[in-house]
Parts: sequence; C-alpha cells; structure tokens
Amino acid sequence: MSEPLRLGIAGLGTVGVGIVRIVQKHQALLAARAGRPITISAVCARSRTKNRDIDLSDYAWEDDPVALAKRDDVDVFVEVMGGHDGPAKDATEAAIDAGKDVVSANKALLAIHGQALAEAAEAAGRVIRFEAAVAGGIPVVKALTEGLAGNDITRVMGVMNGSCNYILTRMEDAGLSYEAVFDEANQLGYLEADPELDVGGIDAAHKLALLSSIAFGTQVDFDSVELDGIGAITIEDIRQAADMGFKIKLLGVAQLTGRGLEQRMSPCLVPDTSPLGRLEGGTNMVVLEGDAVNQIVLRGPGAGEGPTASAVMGDIMDIARGHRMTTFGQPAKTLRKARAARAAVPAPYYLRMQLIDKPGALAKVAHALGEAGISIDRMRQYGHDDAAAPVLIVTHKTTRTALEEAFADFNTTGVVTGDPVAIRIEAV
Amino acid sequence: MSEPLRLGIAGLGTVGVGIVRIVQKHQALLAARAGRPITISAVCARSRTKNRDIDLSDYAWEDDPVALAKRDDVDVFVEVMGGHDGPAKDATEAAIDAGKDVVSANKALLAIHGQALAEAAEAAGRVIRFEAAVAGGIPVVKALTEGLAGNDITRVMGVMNGSCNYILTRMEDAGLSYEAVFDEANQLGYLEADPELDVGGIDAAHKLALLSSIAFGTQVDFDSVELDGIGAITIEDIRQAADMGFKIKLLGVAQLTGRGLEQRMSPCLVPDTSPLGRLEGGTNMVVLEGDAVNQIVLRGPGAGEGPTASAVMGDIMDIARGHRMTTFGQPAKTLRKARAARAAVPAPYYLRMQLIDKPGALAKVAHALGEAGISIDRMRQYGHDDAAAPVLIVTHKTTRTALEEAFADFNTTGVVTGDPVAIRIEAV
Repeated sequence: MSEPLRLGIAGLGTVGVGIVRIVQKHQALLAARAGRPITISAVCARSRTKNRDIDLSDYAWEDDPVALAKRDDVDVFVEVMGGHDGPAKDATEAAIDAGKDVVSANKALLAIHGQALAEAAEAAGRVIRFEAAVAGGIPVVKALTEGLAGNDITRVMGVMNGSCNYILTRMEDAGLSYEAVFDEANQLGYLEADPELDVGGIDAAHKLALLSSIAFGTQVDFDSVELDGIGAITIEDIRQAADMGFKIKLLGVAQLTGRGLEQRMSPCLVPDTSPLGRLEGGTNMVVLEGDAVNQIVLRGPGAGEGPTASAVMGDIMDIARGHRMTTFGQPAKTLRKARAARAAVPAPYYLRMQLIDKPGALAKVAHALGEAGISIDRMRQYGHDDAAAPVLIVTHKTTRTALEEAFADFNTTGVVTGDPVAIRIEAV
Repeated sequence: MSEPLRLGIAGLGTVGVGIVRIVQKHQALLAARAGRPITISAVCARSRTKNRDIDLSDYAWEDDPVALAKRDDVDVFVEVMGGHDGPAKDATEAAIDAGKDVVSANKALLAIHGQALAEAAEAAGRVIRFEAAVAGGIPVVKALTEGLAGNDITRVMGVMNGSCNYILTRMEDAGLSYEAVFDEANQLGYLEADPELDVGGIDAAHKLALLSSIAFGTQVDFDSVELDGIGAITIEDIRQAADMGFKIKLLGVAQLTGRGLEQRMSPCLVPDTSPLGRLEGGTNMVVLEGDAVNQIVLRGPGAGEGPTASAVMGDIMDIARGHRMTTFGQPAKTLRKARAARAAVPAPYYLRMQLIDKPGALAKVAHALGEAGISIDRMRQYGHDDAAAPVLIVTHKTTRTALEEAFADFNTTGVVTGDPVAIRIEAV
C-alpha cells in the first residue's frame, strides 16, 4: 500500500464535518479504492470549541487557514470555508505556493478568481478541483470534463439553486405569493444569510460561469452572466404558465455561438413534461448537450452535508489515485477569452404587463412590438376590477434586445403601467 | 505537446465508425483537452470493402483483430466488435499480453470474463475501461467509480435496455399487445438479431452485473442475476398498473445486504411520477444511491453511434491524460466473491392470475397466500365472458420465495388456470 494522502481541511461547517465523517467511517473502503489511505492531518475553523459532534482529537488544529495550507504534513488543502476574497483566497493561494493540491467547494472564489488560481496552480504543477462547487452531489464537472471529453459541447443548462426551485414549486403547490413563500423559506433556514445570493440568482450564476468554462474551453467569466432573479415572478405568472403547459424555473443556460458566449441565469418557461419542468423542490438538475452524446440529464441533491462532502471526496479520491486534471478541463493558459454575446440566441417570450383600460391600448402595445420586429403568437386580456388590465402575450422567437426596444417604446404609448415582465421560453 | 496516443480500432460497425468520426472531426479539441493528440494507427473489421462513408485511407488495415491488438504502433486496443467469446475475447487477451490498454464497449465479454481479464490486465500494468458497455452515452461507470468514490453504495437501479422500454411505452400509448409491438419493433430494426437478448433482459443483465461489481467491490457475477424478460407483460397489466399509479419498466436492481448480493433484472412496477416511471421510449436511466450522496439520477441515450462513441472516447481521453483506473474501481484481486442472495429484499408484488369461475375459488387463493405468510393489500376480480375470471392482487411486502411457495400451493387448489404473473413493486 502506498503512502497516505494527507488532508488539511479548512472550514468545519456542514461540509467540512461531512468530509471528516466520511474519512473516519470509510477508511477501509477509501483505501481499497484509491490504493492508499486517506488521512486528515489538520483542521481549521473559526471556533475551536463549538460542538460539532465529531472527534477531532487526532488532528492538529490551526486557527489560521493560511498556516494550515502551508503545513508540511498536508498534501491536499481542502477549502470548504466560502467567501470569494479574504481568508479563503489567501489560503488557497498559500496552498498553491506551498506546493499543495487544492479541493474546493467555493463557487464564488472560483467563479471570480478561477483563471488566476488555475494558472498559478498549473504553473506550480498542482491541481485545483471543484466538483462540490457546482450542483452539490451531482458529479457534473467530472461528467463534462472527462465523461464527455470527446464531445463538442453545444449547450449546458441547469436548475442549480435548490432554494429558488423550492420557492417556485411551493408557490404553485400552495397558491402562495412570492413574498409569503420567501418569508417561509427564510424562516425555515433555506436561504443564505444574504438571500439575494439565492433569489437574485448570484449563487447559481457562479455555478453557471464555472460550467461554461469547462464546457467551452473559455476563461471563467462571471461578470458576463446575464442575471435575473425570481423576485418578479408572481403566482399569476406561474398559473398562466401552467395553463399553457409550462413551468417557471430559475434556469441557467450557456451556449457558445458564432456571436460569442451567451450565459444567462434567469427565470424561464420550460415544458412541464420535460425533466427540467418536472423537477420539484430543492433538487438540482443539469442538462449537458454535446455533438456526439446528444443530451445527458443529471439529477441529484444540490446541497447538504452528505452530498457536498461526497463531491469533495470524489475530487480527493481522484488525487489519491494520481488522476491529475487541469482545473477547467484543458490547460488554463489555453482557455480562450470568449466574447460575451448578450441575448444572441432568439427564443419565444412570455410577456406580462398592465394596460390602462381604455380603447386602443392593446393596439398600441401590439404596434410597438411589431415595430421592434416581434410577432405575437398568443395574447390574453383578463377580466379586472381596477383601472389597469393584465395582459399576457406569448411572442414568436425574438431577442432580448428587440424586447427592450419594444419596452422602451411602451413608455411612449402612455398605456402601459409599471414594468412589463418578460420570461424566456427555453427549448429543452 | 506529448506523444500521440495511438488507437487500434477493432470493429467498424456503428460504434467503430462513430469513434473514427470523432477522432477525425475533433483533432484539435481532443489534443487541447488531453494535452496530446489522439491518432488512429490501424483498423479492423470483417469486410474491407463495405461502404462506411468515412475515409480510412490513413490507417493500416488488419483482417485479424488479434494481429491488430499486437501491433507495435497501437497503444490502446479499442474493442467494438461484440461477442463474448471468439475473436473479441482472443483479441482482448492478445492486447493485454502485448502490453496494450483496452477500451471496450463489449458488455457480454466483460460480464462473463471480466474478472479474469481485469486480473490479467492489472498484473500486466494495463487498464481495461468499459464506459460504453453500460447505458450507452451516460457516463455512469465514471460517476460510480470516481464521482461517488467516497460513498458506500447502497443500491443501483436502471432502465438499461432502450428496446424494452420502447416496447412497454408503445404498448401503453397505442394500446397494443406485446406481440404486436414486438413485431413492429423487430421490423423497425430496434431489436438485436437475437431478440431474446433484448426482451429476455440478457443484454440489460450484462450491464447490471457490471454495475454491481463496481458499486459493491464484488467480482462480476452475471450468472447470479435473477432474470425475467418482458414477454409475459400484457396490455392489461400495463393498464391495471397505470390505474394504480404505476408504470411497468424492465428494471435492473442491485443491492448488497447482510444476506449477500441481490441482482435482479425483471419487469417492475414503479410510481408513475418517479423519474424512472416517467422515462419513455428508448432512453436509459440509472439511479445510484450512496450513503453520503443519497440519490443521483442519470438519464441519456443508451445506444446509437454518437452516444456510444462518446462513451468510448471518454475512456480514451482518460488514458491519454494518464488517468489509470482499475477495471472495477479497485484492484481486481481485492474484489470479493459475493454470496448471491436471491430475493432477499422484500417488496410488495402485483399478481395476476386466472381463476376458474366457481364458488370459493377466490377464498382458496387467498388461503394459499395466507399460508405462505403473504398478506393482501388490494384485490380485484373482473367481469368476464369465459370460464376463467381474471384476478389482480397487490400484496403487502413479501419475498419471491414466499410467492413461489404460494404459487406451488395454487396448483393443488385446482382453481388457478395457467401460470400466475408476479411483478415486483420497487420503491424508487
């Protein structure tokens, strides 16, 4: 049996504790599979005294993750602290400098600093692996970079924020407003300390940016993700969508076309009979499309102690087996800087707006759409008690740019009150 | 850039041609990802003159796969010929003897001779990879052996024969008999030359035996798979199942319990709202359950040129990157010989039988079930014109052994005509 692979674990929250549990419980299994033992040399967290219900007495304790990262008895620095700057970044850089491999669950750090970190690691002959940063327990990074390595990837899609999917599913099931379900989810502890990370789509956009990079061989570019949260979705939108055979999902979509790289994280309508449409509650789903494989759908838990620790352990086992992957599937220096293509791929859209109830209002809206080159597939006006009439329109294929042109025009008509809502209908 | 990885491809059917196409089309992409070019040195097939619509002029031709396997200019022997003995086996053994790595799509060969081949390869320091042998384009071998390497795997399930799933789906959609849809599928070329490989569940059982081995660290044991095809399923079974909220699927299930390794490939009832229940047509689905990750569901094309070639290329890319996996996830010599546990895990069953229409018949059947310790959850007797009445029974949890005991008892009652049908209701 070869030398043990020695871990230094920075962060003893849910995920860190999950990793310690697996290493302790599955000693023999991991050694049999990797051909060498996996051991823990040292751990580090903010509080040493917090009761975590695990035995840490065999491991050295460090208060400072940078000190942990530099320890001579650590081969792999396991970063499960979180935060895209500060200690997590400092310690990851220190680990690379000290010649350690890195396994990280930190989507924010990698979505923002991934290119620089990958270049530094590869220059030092080290690896950075991040399966746990994307879609929790689903081994999607591995599927994309290794399993589908023979494919030109054509599109990547995913529902990658369980909290948002929970909220949208619950709104529909219980007929509750966004605000009511948001409060409920917050009280149940389903949302991040800063809920905007969830409902604003930021957390999911970090994941999408990482997936785009490994799918298309491009430098990770979080800033170019078109980002739209679920806060504007009403129960009425959900009902109307259902009526037309659709579900509303916070869907990430990345596509590389002749016009550049399009990355969107936004509410979308998807057919209710599709795997994405049928995804309920907190589960994640990623759809991978390649020229040879056609389409693969992966479904699993997107968060939680066990699933996230499972993903971290997968990376650790790869390193223990001597499988050394480049961070983003090909050498970081060969990753292209993709031109960001905003709204390049046309799609039908679902539009909701309030019209002032006077003759000719609908005609003015239809005219504005026509002027922007947008043709209408379906339109509905609803009964109403107040001065503004809710109107729903489903367009034929168009672009976000054309829609924005039309929306600007709406303002000059004087018949549209408030902001119109536009939700893309994604073909899945 | 490092030395090219040189392939010798044995078999130029659909899959072989697909591999050649990918290597030719994605030269630059593959080299960027693997850090070295992937090239083809030689190919081999039964007919040299057959028009395959690809340019093979740059590759040496061998008539004999054994000669191909031994060539000095071949690093990886790619076996996509098929057949569990004869040339495929001879050539695979020759490749290992000659110090080549092997990538195989041959489920039958590996399900039957996998242990011996893996031991030989590992003794020679060579790898055998077989992603394409299980569930086509879905990277499930990789997900299990690598992505979930930190998990104690608790259960593996799958719909892994697209033809059977097509037949069952089509029976339900079109209201046709098994025989009618079988003929239709056969005429459309959906079935193997020997259809029993498909509808008898043998092909899917090969895949299940391979999955069991990598899931549980046991020696591949195809002979112990409890095998039951779809030939006895009637349109009435499908309708009754639907009525109770179930679909009938040819489902493979492998579980390692205290009593041993249970491997079943048989028609099962699954909830119609579950991912497995919703799987329609020729698509494959594999469900992986582990103690940390809980449950992962993978869905994708189970056959076809592109998907199967995609899986083969994934293995080739791993080898090109220097990722050397043991065949079954841990050294072949450490794989345990599992005791085969037949029907160890109890489940509710759906029973269908014909009773002679005379007073007390139903009571006799109920009594026989009771004597075998089987309690009845639901029972239905249908209107009928002839002398035998169709009766459906859903039992509470029981075992196949108890059912067989009851069925033997049925014979002595003199009221059951023909063979009763028992379909397991699998919790998914």
